[in-house]
Amino acid sequence: MKLIESPSELHATLSGVSSVGLVPTMGYLHDGHASLIRRARIENEVVVVSVFVNPLQFGRGEDLGRYPRDLPHDLRVAQDAGAHVLFTPSVETMYPVGFATRVEVTGPGDGFEGASRPGHFSGVATVVLKLLNLVKPARAYFGEKDWQQLAVVRRVTTDLNLDVDIVACPTMREPSGLALSSRNAYLTAEQRERASVLASALRAAQKAYRRGERRSAAILDAARLVLLSEREFTLDYLSLVDEHLGEFERVTNPASARLLIAGRLFGVRLIDNMPLVEEVSALGGRT
Amino acid sequence: MKLIESPSELHATLSGVSSVGLVPTMGYLHDGHASLIRRARIENEVVVVSVFVNPLQFGRGEDLGRYPRDLPHDLRVAQDAGAHVLFTPSVETMYPVGFATRVEVTGPGDGFEGASRPGHFSGVATVVLKLLNLVKPARAYFGEKDWQQLAVVRRVTTDLNLDVDIVACPTMREPSGLALSSRNAYLTAEQRERASVLASALRAAQKAYRRGERRSAAILDAARLVLLSEREFTLDYLSLVDEHLGEFERVTNPASARLLIAGRLFGVRLIDNMPLVEEVSALGGRT
Repeated sequence: MKLIESPSELHATLSGVSSVGLVPTMGYLHDGHASLIRRARIENEVVVVSVFVNPLQFGRGEDLGRYPRDLPHDLRVAQDAGAHVLFTPSVETMYPVGFATRVEVTGPGDGFEGASRPGHFSGVATVVLKLLNLVKPARAYFGEKDWQQLAVVRRVTTDLNLDVDIVACPTMREPSGLALSSRNAYLTAEQRERASVLASALRAAQKAYRRGERRSAAILDAARLVLLSEREFTLDYLSLVDEHLGEFERVTNPASARLLIAGRLFGVRLIDNMPLVEEVSALGGRT
Repeated sequence: MKLIESPSELHATLSGVSSVGLVPTMGYLHDGHASLIRRARIENEVVVVSVFVNPLQFGRGEDLGRYPRDLPHDLRVAQDAGAHVLFTPSVETMYPVGFATRVEVTGPGDGFEGASRPGHFSGVATVVLKLLNLVKPARAYFGEKDWQQLAVVRRVTTDLNLDVDIVACPTMREPSGLALSSRNAYLTAEQRERASVLASALRAAQKAYRRGERRSAAILDAARLVLLSEREFTLDYLSLVDEHLGEFERVTNPASARLLIAGRLFGVRLIDNMPLVEEVSALGGRT
């Protein structure tokens, strides 16, 4: 595997390659990232993993300064999962003096993370567009963990006529249910165990639906009841949305309904999401 | 020459072409556009001229509804100048229901047209990015007539890492000096003659510099004096700027100094610009 910092070296390395798969990350790679890389490896001749902690997508007072970084670890994880290139551009390369362009997204970018983190999705959209233009992949891989981000990236690439497939990959979880996230590094082992309350809450909502509940409010109440068990948790939002991230009162299209949750636990902001109805395979026969 | 409306037909037509030159226009083609097409024809295997009156770059109360259109005329001009494809996407194709992305540009997009026409450059940047992604040209051609637009397009393509050469082509003028513009169609022949006052004013500023004046204010006063001769003209801005569109008090870098002007005449908004110092060839030996 090659470690590449400069766009020109990247360009030279990728010239003549028939299909590139891009896995854009902010580093501190975990099994979720590894699953994206493995999928990209199957579907493309060459896999590029970008590691770039993008200052544009952090708000003032957010965790840009302390965001976890470990390049040797990232090299190992990326290599083991089958990546060919680890692309690690500097902030100066990505945002040189005079940089003046931002990609703004309304629609799927409004509400939820967009409301809680002003400018966040503009930062995401801008850096993703830059990375797509630098790498020119046939496919780019994103985790479902950041569900709204996925919707934003799909919207931007469609709206701006980019010739790339956006591939969504399922969220990876700890045995407790906690969704894997680089930010879990902020938590102790015991705190991570307790952070599984987000996933447990969403599971409770799924169960309410399976038991016949069709009113959104009542389905979400089932999740809220679980959240009450963790006094340290502060809820930011908990919602049931359709494929356009629109809320609704009653479930009429369960196949596209998604549960979203965000909040703070032990000073760390955590998000998670699940389909209202799990596919059979993911349930391991529990239906 | 082929007339193409759909992105998929465009894609099929351009597949396997070694180099495409794009000339993005809002139609109602004139000799200025023809000069871009001829230049593109020399430098590329295939030349695509896009004709799209982009609603996103018109402000409320601007002339979107009455912007001149004449497709048969555009077909003739493009064909005569050597274009291979006239790409005429519909508004619904470019901005389908749910479209939610805007490219915003500060820096060169601030001030002048950016101040007079809020949202204008965001509209320009967004549509240019879409067209560049649809056509994937090696080179895209823009007239110097829209000087600030050129700076904005360069900024956006650099900032977003697009692999395209932005080629600037000199402004074409009527014998009176009036810069060619599709909006000149709003003027009668006599009004067009009087509209040459913008170019005359800029020429007077150039002359003041040639005579030794180095203070911006005094150079611009020479232009203002000429503008006084046309009582119907309302000045929007008149400025002397550097390559970053920054104003300055004294000329220290004449090679990159540019005169910008905008205003209204007979209800029509007109813009023009010239270098402070004309290149020798353009002056026809007048230095």
